Amino acid sequence: MSSKVPVAVLGATGAVGQRFISLMENHPWFEVKVLTASERSEGKRYIDAVNWVVPGEIPENAGDLEIRTSDTGESLGDDVKLVFSALPTENAKEIEPALAAKGYLVCSNASAYRMDPLVPLLIPEINPDHVHLIEAQRAQRDWPGLLIAAPNCAVTGIVFPMRALHDAFGVTQMHAVTMQAISGAGYPGVASFDILDNVIPYIKGEEDKVENEPRKLLGRLRDGAIEEAEITISAQTNRVPVMDGHMGVLSIKLGRKARIEEVIEALDSWEAPAAVRDLPSTPERAMVLRREPDRPQSRRDRDVGNGMTISVGRVQECPLLDVKLVSLVHNTLRGAAGGALQNAEWLVASGYLGEIVPETVATAAAR
Amino acid sequence: MSSKVPVAVLGATGAVGQRFISLMENHPWFEVKVLTASERSEGKRYIDAVNWVVPGEIPENAGDLEIRTSDTGESLGDDVKLVFSALPTENAKEIEPALAAKGYLVCSNASAYRMDPLVPLLIPEINPDHVHLIEAQRAQRDWPGLLIAAPNCAVTGIVFPMRALHDAFGVTQMHAVTMQAISGAGYPGVASFDILDNVIPYIKGEEDKVENEPRKLLGRLRDGAIEEAEITISAQTNRVPVMDGHMGVLSIKLGRKARIEEVIEALDSWEAPAAVRDLPSTPERAMVLRREPDRPQSRRDRDVGNGMTISVGRVQECPLLDVKLVSLVHNTLRGAAGGALQNAEWLVASGYLGEIVPETVATAAAR
Amino acid sequence: MSSKVPVAVLGATGAVGQRFISLMENHPWFEVKVLTASERSEGKRYIDAVNWVVPGEIPENAGDLEIRTSDTGESLGDDVKLVFSALPTENAKEIEPALAAKGYLVCSNASAYRMDPLVPLLIPEINPDHVHLIEAQRAQRDWPGLLIAAPNCAVTGIVFPMRALHDAFGVTQMHAVTMQAISGAGYPGVASFDILDNVIPYIKGEEDKVENEPRKLLGRLRDGAIEEAEITISAQTNRVPVMDGHMGVLSIKLGRKARIEEVIEALDSWEAPAAVRDLPSTPERAMVLRREPDRPQSRRDRDVGNGMTISVGRVQECPLLDVKLVSLVHNTLRGAAGGALQNAEWLVASGYLGEIVPETVATAAAR
Amino acid sequence: MSSKVPVAVLGATGAVGQRFISLMENHPWFEVKVLTASERSEGKRYIDAVNWVVPGEIPENAGDLEIRTSDTGESLGDDVKLVFSALPTENAKEIEPALAAKGYLVCSNASAYRMDPLVPLLIPEINPDHVHLIEAQRAQRDWPGLLIAAPNCAVTGIVFPMRALHDAFGVTQMHAVTMQAISGAGYPGVASFDILDNVIPYIKGEEDKVENEPRKLLGRLRDGAIEEAEITISAQTNRVPVMDGHMGVLSIKLGRKARIEEVIEALDSWEAPAAVRDLPSTPERAMVLRREPDRPQSRRDRDVGNGMTISVGRVQECPLLDVKLVSLVHNTLRGAAGGALQNAEWLVASGYLGEIVPETVATAAAR
Repeated sequence: MSSKVPVAVLGATGAVGQRFISLMENHPWFEVKVLTASERSEGKRYIDAVNWVVPGEIPENAGDLEIRTSDTGESLGDDVKLVFSALPTENAKEIEPALAAKGYLVCSNASAYRMDPLVPLLIPEINPDHVHLIEAQRAQRDWPGLLIAAPNCAVTGIVFPMRALHDAFGVTQMHAVTMQAISGAGYPGVASFDILDNVIPYIKGEEDKVENEPRKLLGRLRDGAIEEAEITISAQTNRVPVMDGHMGVLSIKLGRKARIEEVIEALDSWEAPAAVRDLPSTPERAMVLRREPDRPQSRRDRDVGNGMTISVGRVQECPLLDVKLVSLVHNTLRGAAGGALQNAEWLVASGYLGEIVPETVATAAAR
Repeated sequence: MSSKVPVAVLGATGAVGQRFISLMENHPWFEVKVLTASERSEGKRYIDAVNWVVPGEIPENAGDLEIRTSDTGESLGDDVKLVFSALPTENAKEIEPALAAKGYLVCSNASAYRMDPLVPLLIPEINPDHVHLIEAQRAQRDWPGLLIAAPNCAVTGIVFPMRALHDAFGVTQMHAVTMQAISGAGYPGVASFDILDNVIPYIKGEEDKVENEPRKLLGRLRDGAIEEAEITISAQTNRVPVMDGHMGVLSIKLGRKARIEEVIEALDSWEAPAAVRDLPSTPERAMVLRREPDRPQSRRDRDVGNGMTISVGRVQECPLLDVKLVSLVHNTLRGAAGGALQNAEWLVASGYLGEIVPETVATAAAR
Repeated sequence: MSSKVPVAVLGATGAVGQRFISLMENHPWFEVKVLTASERSEGKRYIDAVNWVVPGEIPENAGDLEIRTSDTGESLGDDVKLVFSALPTENAKEIEPALAAKGYLVCSNASAYRMDPLVPLLIPEINPDHVHLIEAQRAQRDWPGLLIAAPNCAVTGIVFPMRALHDAFGVTQMHAVTMQAISGAGYPGVASFDILDNVIPYIKGEEDKVENEPRKLLGRLRDGAIEEAEITISAQTNRVPVMDGHMGVLSIKLGRKARIEEVIEALDSWEAPAAVRDLPSTPERAMVLRREPDRPQSRRDRDVGNGMTISVGRVQECPLLDVKLVSLVHNTLRGAAGGALQNAEWLVASGYLGEIVPETVATAAAR
Repeated sequence: MSSKVPVAVLGATGAVGQRFISLMENHPWFEVKVLTASERSEGKRYIDAVNWVVPGEIPENAGDLEIRTSDTGESLGDDVKLVFSALPTENAKEIEPALAAKGYLVCSNASAYRMDPLVPLLIPEINPDHVHLIEAQRAQRDWPGLLIAAPNCAVTGIVFPMRALHDAFGVTQMHAVTMQAISGAGYPGVASFDILDNVIPYIKGEEDKVENEPRKLLGRLRDGAIEEAEITISAQTNRVPVMDGHMGVLSIKLGRKARIEEVIEALDSWEAPAAVRDLPSTPERAMVLRREPDRPQSRRDRDVGNGMTISVGRVQECPLLDVKLVSLVHNTLRGAAGGALQNAEWLVASGYLGEIVPETVATAAAR
């Protein structure tokens, strides 16, 4: 028996699916065993079906896997219980709950169920306890499996400084303008004809996500339900000609007044909850504060902590609300595949994988 | 005698200086006769001294001019009274008032005196009456000449929708995030090493300008002084890898509540004051409202109206303030040389050039 | 009766189709009357069906036209005889000859029939007499209409300096490396995910075209057939992150030795044949020679002559062959829609449109 | 006593100097102890003087070093004998031989002495024996130290496939067109105003280097002198808007005819000499052959082997010479600091550092 948890990646030929496979090439706990894609690719070897667009080469073991269809049937086989979904939203809508109903543990990167009241919207450093919403999910949905979701990529970058400030002072209002990388649109995604030497002040559906998901992420799990944080958010989202890295330009109103030095101190001293610090994908520092006037920058800071560290900076008093700052996230690592992978690690450490976890992994997760 | 007003361009070898020369190649009223630059270029023919970086070729008449120094001496000669300044701020500080004191009429693009209480900060479509602040300037400074300034390039784009909304409903607060083109930093300006595949969330001194200049532009001339508009502005300014075009992402609080349809109508129906519409550099439409969800865009909309038309769009209700929208300006045309040139035209039409205006121009300006 | 020739544009919703429509907005001879696209768009107003991606707004008259299908049926109506084809190659293959067989005069930008021995591959400045290959085409194909083709966009830029050198010294060998803009791939074309911060050393099918089309263009029409020029060409074609402008980096072996000054003189003094100089789309100078060490450049020189002028430069001795130089073409203007439009003008001036030409146009063309 | 060789970096604040420092952060043999820069920075801590532009953070030990001047005096102190030069050419010209004359072992990245007949121009995988030209250098220059040079960044990428083909078939002619990244121009280097959305067909002095340096690199050391390889090269060098990675587009004439399969096999099977394979900076594979039609690509392949592996591909028959191919090098790693660092490692392994090598390093180098 292998010493790792076998996993499936749904939507494996897309850009996020590729990132999942790339990140799990040498993962200490997980091993990719099943890949699915649209019918067009069914039956092909992965290496023959995929147009590999992420950095590095196709991991050898994944390259030889035969692609199955991303449908709701029995196609995932008997060995795999843990499933990463990089499905398009419309497909995720149908497939993800169907798989949970069949007993699969689904860690999704899709937007379909993020705001579902019974689905944990999870970032281990931000709201680790929300994982227990699974109890209510199981009770009410009667699923032998489960479904958890990772938030939108732009939201992921923004919610880290929000968390630190919410803990310290409360956050009641936020104005958020984003400058988002083209990789956020997947592959082929944004046409170069549209974005070279250009800014597009529109990303379909994105403003809604930025205005709503942080409220759930910063909410409280109480009596089997999430009470959303009472924060009013106004978002304007933009596409810029940058490869990776979503920059959030934020202006925040605090629950109680604070001097700018206190705000800086709160951001600088914030740390992820101890329980999640040893997960394999948790970076050494969840968030770093830059004090140079011109940082963080998309290209220069997106790769910090293997793309899992959020960089914030330019903290200033705001003449309108209380504090202005910027926050940068690597959108396809922390903001997509890396985040969903870390969520699965948190599932393991929280005991939700039960007997399918090999002893070595169980021991490591229990450290 | 020539039928055009002879003019000088100070700082003629820089990117804005080049735009001035390019825009006046076939100007109906003005003709470039004197060029100045730093000592290094003194005595050289313009064509030999300049590294021409703006579109098109060096206009023939300018290419042959001998460069003079941008100092405060007699170097501009006797023929020229009207002067366009594209000087760096530190040089403008000393040279511009010295020239005004000698009788020159200085139309500046520099930031040095924009917030000087006796210097009109002018956009003909926005605050044409501010030109009469010159009366107070002359009275108090005892200058035989005069000095007027064009606003910052990012401010120029933002202040058009502000004007329309201020007229209709009053504007009391604004949150402004900008995404600014690299041409705004002049030449050589931003290193490609810094900006390729990157966003830099910092432009030195820019946030102050965006927070202050609109207050003066939208203020009232009363008793020989500008009463600034009481608008609180919070600005965050960013550099993006775009050649030309500054995008302002705005969220605005109105003096009185208005439905979003009224706001849209106010923007759509706003027109420049009739008196300035026939200036040679005034575009057919000062501001156009785009109704597509993804416009304006920097590359696709910056050249509208020969780069003199402001494009606004994405008008939406704002959950925090009242209305969100974006506004785009061509930063080196409307936002720099084109704006300063139009200011000079307004000086002519307002009668400030007196006898130095040839009769044909005077007639045209009087239409 | 209108004073212009009514025309149809096939494949009107694509990027080249849009350029055709844009260029004919104020064309003195032609007027767009019929637009076709794929079945998906059939019956829609053009303005509702098109994702307009080229500069400027959709011309009003075109916006209101109802789209017909690009099939081979009677859908073009009775009024139109002159047809511009911006069809994808696979569609062009079937549709273009079918239309010629029905009596339409087809000016194609597609690659399908460029190397057909009976189809003129035409650039008016380069090989105006090839238009008469139409005689052989009509004789052998028995078409009441006709079909002519414009060359590949990269070829168009390269063949101008080749023509000048071939005329002066003969050209026997050429090594050509291209750096091609993303607009050459149409819309959506190249994914930004693929080309931002990247060079792709491959464009499908392009090297064949660069190695073959110049031989036909520089060939001789003799006895109703083109004798290809005996020039051996080796091509390597690359995609670079540039919006418009294909740069050809050439190394050329001449038929007889020439000093570099003679080569420069031959390039500088070359002029388009007098007969084609008055066509509406012929630029003032077909080719300009730049003498600066760092010109032409893609962004700075592509728009010369409204994008119809070829810019060459960096003429040097070549240690291997005889002469090295670079040549730049605006690939979607001169190299696509603009070139095909000029071909149609040459058809008119050559008398091939017969009675469908209004008298005013006939008179103008006869100048 | 430290277990590493203490080294100095000259020109430490420039982009290449930064790369040296970054690469030696955890180098097993070398430790940065002395940094020099221009007088402006003298006496400052490195962290206060440098505008750090390369990836990652400033290594801690380097950040605290006090900068000395890059002059020829005693400023390097007594502890350091091994010196890396990232000086501008004009400074290198004077300083490098002066240091060699004082007993320093100078590994240069500058172009000043690359073609000096007594200075080894070295790439360990390409011409490891050229290091022994040092014997002649010492004999004739009477230097107690020594001076070796790394080749031009574009040359470095090109010479690997040349080496493989020269070994197998002989190479007699080469046509080389390059598409070079902006980082090759150092910092600030190329203005974004010049290169965004542009190709510049000119890099000062570069074509000479590409035409000459490979002849020396592939030459033979015989009787204390390098006999250059008899290869005629024609180069055309271009700047493209890419961050890192120089692409060489090559067409090569072989000494004896070979089928394309043999050429491919020769490239695929070529390996670096065994003696240099264990140097710390030698990558696992010195050169990889890509068989996809569209690889290598600048962004996707530059980082292979930590930026030390050359990627070649698109091997095809050439209608003019014999074989066409492209070759990609990471210009600031393999092509600059990484290459010069590996040269120093080869000096160590070749015994040229003598007693200044700690025993642990000597042992490692002797493996």
